[in-house]
Order: sequence, then C-alpha cells, then structure tokens
Amino acid sequence: MPRPSKHSPERGDARTRLLEAARDIIRTKGYAATSVDELCQAAEVTKGAFFHHFKSKEALGVAAAEFWAETTSAFFAAAPYHAPTDPLGRVLAYVAFRRSIIAGAIPDFTCLVGTMAEEVYATAPAIRDACAASVFGHAATLEADIEAAMRDRGTDARWTAASLARHTQCVLQGAFVLAKAGNNAELARESLDHLDRYIRLLFNCPGKETRT
Amino acid sequence: MPRPSKHSPERGDARTRLLEAARDIIRTKGYAATSVDELCQAAEVTKGAFFHHFKSKEALGVAAAEFWAETTSAFFAAAPYHAPTDPLGRVLAYVAFRRSIIAGAIPDFTCLVGTMAEEVYATAPAIRDACAASVFGHAATLEADIEAAMRDRGTDARWTAASLARHTQCVLQGAFVLAKAGNNAELARESLDHLDRYIRLLFNCPGKETRT
Repeated sequence: MPRPSKHSPERGDARTRLLEAARDIIRTKGYAATSVDELCQAAEVTKGAFFHHFKSKEALGVAAAEFWAETTSAFFAAAPYHAPTDPLGRVLAYVAFRRSIIAGAIPDFTCLVGTMAEEVYATAPAIRDACAASVFGHAATLEADIEAAMRDRGTDARWTAASLARHTQCVLQGAFVLAKAGNNAELARESLDHLDRYIRLLFNCPGKETRT
Repeated sequence: MPRPSKHSPERGDARTRLLEAARDIIRTKGYAATSVDELCQAAEVTKGAFFHHFKSKEALGVAAAEFWAETTSAFFAAAPYHAPTDPLGRVLAYVAFRRSIIAGAIPDFTCLVGTMAEEVYATAPAIRDACAASVFGHAATLEADIEAAMRDRGTDARWTAASLARHTQCVLQGAFVLAKAGNNAELARESLDHLDRYIRLLFNCPGKETRT
C-alpha cells in the first residue's frame, strides 16, 4: 500500500482554497492588483505552500481559469435549461437561465475569465489562452441545440450555429462590463432581454415579451 | 496683458502626453499593471510633473477616462455615419462604421473605458464613474436616430431607444473581450454582424446579408 505523502490532504485543500481565493479576489479587483500575499492570507496558506502548488503568479492565473472552466462546466451541465424537449426551447431557456443568475453583488455574477482576458491578453498569453478555452469551450456546448433548432425550423440562415453561440457569450461579457461601469445589474439583464429577442426574431418565434 | 505662467506651454503638453500614454499603456496592460514611472517615461515627463498635473494615479485614471470621452466624442461626431438621410440608415451606418474600425492591433481598436471599468469598478469608484459617463454618454448620442427610426417605421416596440442604444455598447464591449480572449479581431467583427442583423430584424428591414 503506497504511503500517502505527509502533506497530501493539506496540499489538496490548500490548492483549492487558493483557486477559490483567486476566483473571488480577481473578480473583485482584477488580476494585477491581486498579490500572492493576499491570496495566501485569504486561503490561509503559507507562501511556501503557494509556490509549492504554483510556480508563479501567472501559473496560478492559468490554473484559476482552468478551475473556472471546470466548475462552471459542472454548474451549467446540471442547470435546468437542458430540460425543454424543443431545441429552440433549450436555447431560449439557456438565455433565461443566464439572465436569472445575474443577481446579487457584481463580483458574484461576473466572469473571472472575461475579466482576466480583458486585462492580461497582451501581457500573459498563457492566461489569455486558458480564458479563451473556458469562454469558447462553453460557447461550444450551445452549438448542438442551435444546430438542431436551425434544422427544425428550416431557417435559411447565413450565420452558423458556432457564430451565434459565440455571440451569446459576447452579449454576456458586454453585459458584465456595462453592469460594472454603471454599478447596476439591471444594465446586464436588459442586454440579455435583447439577446432573447434577437434569437426569437432569427427563428421567427415571437413569444414572451421582454421588458427593456 | 497677463503674464503667462512660466510653465504653461510645457505643462499643457506634459498633461496631454501623460493622458495619451495612459490611453495606450492601459489599453495594452490594464490599469493596475501600469505604473506612474512607466507613464512618466513614455510621456517623457518627470515624476514631479506627473504629480503637478494629477494628485494621484487614481486622478490620472479619472482624467484618462475624461480625455477618452472628449477625444472619442470628437472622432464620432466627425465620422461619416451621420450622412444618410434616413434615421435607420444612420443607425445601421453607425454599426457598420464601428465594425470598420475594428482593425489593426488589439490595443488600437479596443476601449480604454471598458477595460478600466472591468478592472477597477469595485476598487476605484471615481474611475468607474468617469468610465460610465463615457460609455453611457456615447450611447446617448445614438438615441435620437433610434427614436426617429422607431417613429418612421411605426414599430410597436416594447423596448426603448435608450435600451437599444446601450445594447449596441454591450455588444461592442463584449466583442472586445472575445477578440482579446481569442486574440483575433474577426471574433469582434462577427458580433457586430449579429448586431446589424438584430437591428434590421427589429425594424423589419432585411438588407445587406452579412457574413458570420
């Protein structure tokens, strides 16, 4: 029977605590303004433990983006928007679900990887690429339902499912920027209403009349 | 005749050079990662001159957002999208113009105030508010044309001109985030095509078939 490393239980916990601290602190104040000391303090780990798990602050940034991709993937996979039997219903339920979780404090509903990409796209390409994998990986999960809705409804679309899937993420990221600038979550929700209306118009499916 | 201050010509230049350096460096690496020393070096001014013009780095951030609002307002006021006689034509020409200027290097076409709002919304409310004034002030310049288009076309809209004007800025900001994450300007242009298509659908005005 292999002898467990003396540190392994603490190690696993410390790593996760550091990634959770990174997620919460970077969403509040950005990547550059977040110090390794601050992350250690919030995670209650030593600086030695930090550098045991991450060879640099940049490596922590990459791991935080990967942790975000992993945890949000699980969250969205378990979300109720997959329930409708109609593919277009699932696409619209996705938008409604994203709208419904824009609530509470701004750091709690905004996007770690959008924020990091905005800030370090030119200075930390490894973090940027991990952020891209998260954003575009999530967008790709919407493609099958959009494709099926296009087949169902026989649209003569000049746009692709992949492009519309990415556009949903564009509207979400822009909605977060506007909510932050205006310090008001309602600014994000109103753009989700426009996105809902756009998708209904594309599929010639009026319905729920949204506010805004 | 009033005696000109000994420093005034140099002063004016130094301030503008600092604001231009802030605009370019913050768009490349973000606000927190940009140091006062770096700004002084790029603007070729002393640290004394910096603190003569700006009482703190935060004050520089506020002034940079105001300088952005001022210079982009002049740029957009002189842009060709105001030429069409049809109000909807002007709205669509605005979107086409914004699409056309998404070109060159990412720091050159992305938005200083969107980037700063994303990063410092919680930590520097004065900068956030100056960013909001720029973003929402620019959105407001679109309202009259959208209103006129709504009257012209007699839409039974449940959305307001102000809301659609803000949504155009949401799509632009989100487009910049996606272009940064994917390191590809085309990702921004494709969302502008979706915005063009959305506005045409709202006004029941098909037309130019856009790619994506």
